[in-house]
Amino acid sequence: MPRQGDGDTPVELRGVGVFGKHQAFVVKEANPLNGGAPAQRLVAGALTPVDHFFVRNHGSIPRIDAAAHRLSVTGMVQRPLTLSLPDLRRQFPTVTVEAVLECAGNRRSELMALRPVPGELPWDAEAVGNAEWTGVPLAAVLAAAGVVPGALHAAFNGGDEVTKDGRRFGFGGSIPLAKATAPEVLLAFDMNGEPLRLEHGAPLRVVVPGYIGARSVKWVDEIVVSDRPSENYFQTKAYKMFPPAVTAATVDWASGKMLGEIPVNAAIADPADHAVVPAGRCVVRGYALSGAAPIVTVEVSADGGRRWQPASLQPRSSPWAWCLWDAALDLAPGAYELTVRARDARGATQPDDMAEAWNFKGYLNNARHRVRITVQS
Amino acid sequence: MPRQGDGDTPVELRGVGVFGKHQAFVVKEANPLNGGAPAQRLVAGALTPVDHFFVRNHGSIPRIDAAAHRLSVTGMVQRPLTLSLPDLRRQFPTVTVEAVLECAGNRRSELMALRPVPGELPWDAEAVGNAEWTGVPLAAVLAAAGVVPGALHAAFNGGDEVTKDGRRFGFGGSIPLAKATAPEVLLAFDMNGEPLRLEHGAPLRVVVPGYIGARSVKWVDEIVVSDRPSENYFQTKAYKMFPPAVTAATVDWASGKMLGEIPVNAAIADPADHAVVPAGRCVVRGYALSGAAPIVTVEVSADGGRRWQPASLQPRSSPWAWCLWDAALDLAPGAYELTVRARDARGATQPDDMAEAWNFKGYLNNARHRVRITVQS
Repeated sequence: MPRQGDGDTPVELRGVGVFGKHQAFVVKEANPLNGGAPAQRLVAGALTPVDHFFVRNHGSIPRIDAAAHRLSVTGMVQRPLTLSLPDLRRQFPTVTVEAVLECAGNRRSELMALRPVPGELPWDAEAVGNAEWTGVPLAAVLAAAGVVPGALHAAFNGGDEVTKDGRRFGFGGSIPLAKATAPEVLLAFDMNGEPLRLEHGAPLRVVVPGYIGARSVKWVDEIVVSDRPSENYFQTKAYKMFPPAVTAATVDWASGKMLGEIPVNAAIADPADHAVVPAGRCVVRGYALSGAAPIVTVEVSADGGRRWQPASLQPRSSPWAWCLWDAALDLAPGAYELTVRARDARGATQPDDMAEAWNFKGYLNNARHRVRITVQS
Repeated sequence: MPRQGDGDTPVELRGVGVFGKHQAFVVKEANPLNGGAPAQRLVAGALTPVDHFFVRNHGSIPRIDAAAHRLSVTGMVQRPLTLSLPDLRRQFPTVTVEAVLECAGNRRSELMALRPVPGELPWDAEAVGNAEWTGVPLAAVLAAAGVVPGALHAAFNGGDEVTKDGRRFGFGGSIPLAKATAPEVLLAFDMNGEPLRLEHGAPLRVVVPGYIGARSVKWVDEIVVSDRPSENYFQTKAYKMFPPAVTAATVDWASGKMLGEIPVNAAIADPADHAVVPAGRCVVRGYALSGAAPIVTVEVSADGGRRWQPASLQPRSSPWAWCLWDAALDLAPGAYELTVRARDARGATQPDDMAEAWNFKGYLNNARHRVRITVQS
C-alpha cells in the first residue's frame, strides 16, 4: 500500500490552521499528533465541527493515495477480498450514523493528579466528539467475504506507522464479530458530510459506535476475521484495564481486560475548571455518554456531591450520539466544587471516588467529574 | 383513560383530506381505518410524508386527551410507574430515530391471487413507510421502573378498542426484553418532526425498528414486563406464522411462530403493475428492507428472473431506514415481467416462488415481487 512520510511530523502539520483545525485546537503532542479543543468549546452544538474534533494518534499520519488504496479482507472468510474505494462505494450501500467517539484516555489528567501515569497523554475532558459518519456497513463487507463458522472477532489494521519496542507496525485492534455485524458499525469515508480529513483517517476508517475510540481504526487497509482478538500491540497490551492495585512493575499484561464498550461517563464542559463567574444564575453545561445504553439522568451538584439537581438533557438525533445537558444553578459569591453524575438505562453509574477508577495506564476515567469555580459578587 | 368515540368510524375520518391524508391515499377499509398511498408514490424520497404513510388499524381510532393521558408500567418491575406525557418528556431523554415500519400484511394481495385469505386486508406493496420518530428510549423508561431478574418480554397495550370474538379490548403485543432495551426502540410522540397524528397513535406510540409494524403499538397506555409474551389476541393468535400446508381448518394456533423481526423484502414501486411505458430507457425504482441486517444487494430482472442486473442503492441516513434503489433497463417494445431480489448482510434472501411464502393468514410475503409491464414503441 503506497505511503508517504517517514514517521516525522509532516511540515504542514506543524502550523495551526494548515491542516484544518481551529485556532482553539490545542496540540498536546506534535509527533505523533495528538490534541483537541477545550471541552468548553465542544458543547456549543450536538455535532462537533471537524476543526474542533480531537485527534489521537500513536504513529505517523499517512498520506494515502486514495486512488491506489486497497482494503483487504482476509482470515476466516470464504472469499478473501481486495477492495478499492470505488469498489466499496459501488458494491455496498451507504449509511450515515451520528455517533460519539471517546478516547479511552479521556479525562486521564485527573487520574494523573492522583498519581503519575508515565508515558501517557494528559487528556482533560476534550478527547471526545460527536459527528455524522458516512460509509458502508462493515456487516455488508463481511457478508460479501463470507465469514466462516467459528469466527469470533474482526481485526482492523491501519496504514499509519507506529514505532514500539523497536518494531514498526500499523495501529490496530479488534472487536467481537457480534458487534462488527451490528448495523451501526461503518467503514467510513465522510465525516459531518465532508470527505474524511487526513488526520481523521482519510480515505477510510472504521467507526465503532459505543466502543472506545481506539477500535475505530483510521486509515484502515486490512480487516482480518479470526477466532481470537487482534494480536496488535494496541489490543494485546495497550488499551487493557487493570485493577487499581496493579502497577507497571507488577503487571501481568495477559491478565488485563481488553477494553471495548464505553462505560457511562459525564463531564462538565462549562464553566471550565478554575473559572471565575458572576454571582446569580450560573448555567452549567456538559456531555454524557454510555456505550451500553441511553443516558437516562444527569445530575449536578454545587457542593461537591451532597445535594444534587437534575440537568436537562438535550434531544439527540441518534441513539449513538452523545447526550448534551445543562443545568441552571443559583450561586452566591464563594468557592464551589461543581460535580456531575450520570446514569444509563442499564442502571450503570459512575464511581464517586477517583481512586476507584484508578488504573496504572489511566484508561476510562469515569469517576465523577469535578470543577472548582469562584463566584464573585 | 378518557376516550371518545364508540367504535364507529368518526365522521371526520370519512372525508379524504380531513384527517390529513393526501388525496392519493387509498382507504382499503373504512372501519377500522386501513389504507395507504400507492407504492409508486412512496419512493419519491427517503422520508415518507405523513400524509402518504400507511395506516393499519384493528379497532377504533381513539381521540385521547393528551393532558389526561397516562402510561402505566407494571408487571415484573420494582417500581410500577404512572407517567403523564409531561412526565415522560421531563424525566427521560429525547432521541430521534429514522426507521422504516412495515406491516406484516404488506404484499398480501399477491398471496391472495394464489389462494384466498378470508378476512384479511389485500395490501399491495404500500403498507410500508420510513419516518423520523422522536420520543424517549423505552430502555430508559424500563430502567426507571427497574426490571426484575427473570423478566423476558415487554408487552404494550393500546388505547384503541378492538372487537374480536365478542370481546372488546385494546390492540396489544410484546417484544423480547433484549429488543425492548436496545437503544433504537422508542416511545414516540413526534413523526417527521411534527406531533404524532391521531391515526398514527397520538399522543404516544411504540416504535420498534426492525420488527413488524404490529409491535409498534399505537395510543400506548400500558407496558407490562413479564416472563412470557403478551396474552393479547394479536400476539397469541394473530401475527403468527404457519407452514404453507396449514389451513384455517387444520390450524393449531399455539404451534404458530410469533412474528417479530422483519425478513428481507423488496418491492418494485415504479413502474406500477400493468403499466404501459415507452420503449428505451426505463428506470425501475423501489424499496428494500430487512430487520436483521443492512441490505447489501438489490438486483432486478426484466425476463422474470433469468438474467439479473444490480440496482443502485440510495444512501441511508440511519441503519434502521429502508433502502431505496433504482436501476435503468433498456427495453424494446414488448411484454415484460420485471422482478426484484435483495440480500441482507446476514446472507438472507427472498423465496423465488410465492408458494414458499404462502401462509394462510398471509403474513410476511417476501417472495420476489413481480410487475408486468407493456413497452410500446
